Amino acid sequence: MVLLNPITRGPEVKSRVAVVGVGQTKFGVHKGQALSELAAEASFSAMADARVDHSDIGFVSVGVASGSLSGQLSPAASILDAIGLVGVPCQRSEAACATGSAAIYAAYSHISSGLADTAIVIGAEIMTQVGTSSATDYLAQMTDSRWEYSLGITFPGMFALMASAHMKEFGTTEEDLALVSCKNHRNALKNEDAQFHKTVSVEDVLGSPPVAPPLKLLDCSPLSDGAAAVILASEEKARTYTDTPVWVRAIGAASSGNLLSERKHLSSIPSIRLAAMRAFQQSGLSSRDMDFAEVHDCFTIAEIIAYEELGFAERGKGAKLLRDGATEIGGDIPVNASGGLKAKGHPLGATGVGMVVELTRQLRSEVEKSRQIKDAKVGLAQNMGLTGQYSYVSIYSR
Amino acid sequence: MVLLNPITRGPEVKSRVAVVGVGQTKFGVHKGQALSELAAEASFSAMADARVDHSDIGFVSVGVASGSLSGQLSPAASILDAIGLVGVPCQRSEAACATGSAAIYAAYSHISSGLADTAIVIGAEIMTQVGTSSATDYLAQMTDSRWEYSLGITFPGMFALMASAHMKEFGTTEEDLALVSCKNHRNALKNEDAQFHKTVSVEDVLGSPPVAPPLKLLDCSPLSDGAAAVILASEEKARTYTDTPVWVRAIGAASSGNLLSERKHLSSIPSIRLAAMRAFQQSGLSSRDMDFAEVHDCFTIAEIIAYEELGFAERGKGAKLLRDGATEIGGDIPVNASGGLKAKGHPLGATGVGMVVELTRQLRSEVEKSRQIKDAKVGLAQNMGLTGQYSYVSIYSR
Repeated sequence: MVLLNPITRGPEVKSRVAVVGVGQTKFGVHKGQALSELAAEASFSAMADARVDHSDIGFVSVGVASGSLSGQLSPAASILDAIGLVGVPCQRSEAACATGSAAIYAAYSHISSGLADTAIVIGAEIMTQVGTSSATDYLAQMTDSRWEYSLGITFPGMFALMASAHMKEFGTTEEDLALVSCKNHRNALKNEDAQFHKTVSVEDVLGSPPVAPPLKLLDCSPLSDGAAAVILASEEKARTYTDTPVWVRAIGAASSGNLLSERKHLSSIPSIRLAAMRAFQQSGLSSRDMDFAEVHDCFTIAEIIAYEELGFAERGKGAKLLRDGATEIGGDIPVNASGGLKAKGHPLGATGVGMVVELTRQLRSEVEKSRQIKDAKVGLAQNMGLTGQYSYVSIYSR
Repeated sequence: MVLLNPITRGPEVKSRVAVVGVGQTKFGVHKGQALSELAAEASFSAMADARVDHSDIGFVSVGVASGSLSGQLSPAASILDAIGLVGVPCQRSEAACATGSAAIYAAYSHISSGLADTAIVIGAEIMTQVGTSSATDYLAQMTDSRWEYSLGITFPGMFALMASAHMKEFGTTEEDLALVSCKNHRNALKNEDAQFHKTVSVEDVLGSPPVAPPLKLLDCSPLSDGAAAVILASEEKARTYTDTPVWVRAIGAASSGNLLSERKHLSSIPSIRLAAMRAFQQSGLSSRDMDFAEVHDCFTIAEIIAYEELGFAERGKGAKLLRDGATEIGGDIPVNASGGLKAKGHPLGATGVGMVVELTRQLRSEVEKSRQIKDAKVGLAQNMGLTGQYSYVSIYSR
């Protein structure tokens, strides 16, 4: 595989933490279910996958982005109780839509430090039970309360500004944005955990109701309920659980200023690039070495920008990469074979953890044949919060 | 110093992480100030104390318990921006009223793992800007949404049940509870960062308005705004900043089931004991070795139970320890020389971080003379979330 714009090559860092088990609920609408019930379903599935005993787990890392959405303002305690890990140290991490990755990062550092040798990461969110307008409002309250939320901007509006800038600067078109949606919906068809199972055409996307021009409804990821769980273990411990550990090769994290209005360019998200550089440096790998990726397509434009920031395409050439089919399953660098946030769904806290569930299953060759990346050895996950205020790029390998 | 009931002695763990700088705002009512402004004030003070450059900091660990209280649902991004650490990995930890300790734990594991060698922990909360009844409601939403919040119980009610059980089982009296308040208000008189600076008598406490019998207003910690910050560094790095590092000897963390109604006894909080045992084991120290402690007196009964769970007194003998004056400044084991949550104030996310500010200043002999613990070498901080669902006991030494 030869890709554009390899960013860097740093010293190889020895893998010390592995994924030994993964689990996930279906993403979608779970009427009447509590957050802790979804979290427990994903957790038990991950624990069964790892064949790990309750008594082995030394740290519980919970990722829930918004207590307001579920009416449970300190959600970790109820999740811990539901999975029966009472006594074990437990805390919640939050980084808006990158909350799942923040929870993984907390568990990763916990194991790297030797404080525990096995940890469970549980990402979960309930988003459909408060109604769409309340949900949109709670999400908007994650932006700056004085200079953004109070002036009325919401996330679709912010990403619409970014899409407009990218279109103006690089000639990206509404059809290009639509192609992201079409690809990801197509990929989701064979992912049974995905929220949507229907083909979407370019015409469907272009003809769907405008949300924040140029973004239409089918450019936007949905409100979703769901949970995902991952068991991490130290190298020594991992060998006792499984013959097919998936190694955490690197987690690069970065941040950006809080106000979109203060950003130099609206057509790029520098924190993604910074997180990617850190991940490539830590792992000694480059974007060239990635066999596939799951990226944060909260809105279609975000996937195109991600191609560019991750070094899969040169700046301004993201749409071309897509049009050339390179990011299709079977292409040079398949992106969002799971269906992505757009079609798999985007239960905030579960999203980053769910990316690692997908990477692990791909690297273990366990996904449905038509979605399976052939001979996948190394995969990348890119997850961000807000408009890139929190960025995580992580690399996993067989 | 000879104390009751030393719990355990484990293998000595080598100190690897140190506190190299601390800062804190006044706790109290900060009208019109944003969360990020308070956080920045504490952070700059800690950075100046450590003489650390912005460029040295590799991880920003934010502790804010409730975004709802400040109307900023993903508060870390605005705090990061306000302190000018854009680019640096940043995430929020949450564990209800133990949020500050959760944020310290995240930074501690981050440095122990080698992912960063210097980190800043910022705990902050705005609680007085939404009005008392909204604040009480947001706090109650941290309890179980189905079996507690929806049935109308709030935290004063829960701790009132615990106080009643302790009184019935061990003969603890309302006067004993009042003595906690009197001691902590007395200690706060000379702490300029404290919310309250007034003497309170047993009669004042007993005569204050009932909140949830047997607890009265002066048995309860207040709503507070405030922020605290701590700079942590690896051993090697710490030596470059300061000749007087304060070592993190251990952080013991534990959890409990989520429902108070399912607890075997209401007169004890087992997760405190479990966290303490872990901290003593990690440090190779026992409760006997502690020169002083800051404990989580969200309600007066909680301080008495803490004495017992930490091994400062035998079960049921907490009130006697207090009556004997052992927990006064100058006593065998001074507790809450800062004024504690009761009188220093309890801005949720700042509380656990503020305890470490106090411990550090005590261990560096920097506090006002009448509050200074003589020849303090080792101190303990006990911080919990909800009714002990999240528990942290940490030990710091010169």
